[in-house]
Amino acid sequence: MTSDMIINHKDKANALLKADADKILKLIKVQMDNLTMPQCPLYEEVLDTQMFGLSKEIDFATRLGLVDETVGKKILDELEKELSVLHEASTRK
Amino acid sequence: MTSDMIINHKDKANALLKADADKILKLIKVQMDNLTMPQCPLYEEVLDTQMFGLSKEIDFATRLGLVDETVGKKILDELEKELSVLHEASTRK
Repeated sequence: MTSDMIINHKDKANALLKADADKILKLIKVQMDNLTMPQCPLYEEVLDTQMFGLSKEIDFATRLGLVDETVGKKILDELEKELSVLHEASTRK
Repeated sequence: MTSDMIINHKDKANALLKADADKILKLIKVQMDNLTMPQCPLYEEVLDTQMFGLSKEIDFATRLGLVDETVGKKILDELEKELSVLHEASTRK
């Protein structure tokens, strides 16, 4: 196992978390783009579940020492911001 | 970074998942031991959420190549078995 295999786990963990976060971001964007449509009543439930899942992955990666705590927190904070923008937009509608 | 640091991630990932699974098992045992008491109505919801969280960790560790898919599946299957024993016991009560 060469040394770049070692770094691989860290890079891969960060990349996986980023990709999973982007999937949630896409879900949020779809909702934002379809605000005029009747809101799927469960979308908040779906997004909350997705956020919970991502937070467990981030916690796991952090405990493993593969991802820095601040990096993990930043990923979640950015999504939380998008979620509150969405929530406000859908309640103002 | 010595080679044992490489293995460390795999061992640590497996150990973390085992420890998280044991936490859920303890929750199940507490419920089993207190079947005669009025069941906390949310215990199934709590256990489902915990199981979902663990499944996301296992999926993440598997995608990272740190844990073998069959190992992850075995962890969840064993807990599912305990959950159905608990469920039956509480409905038979």
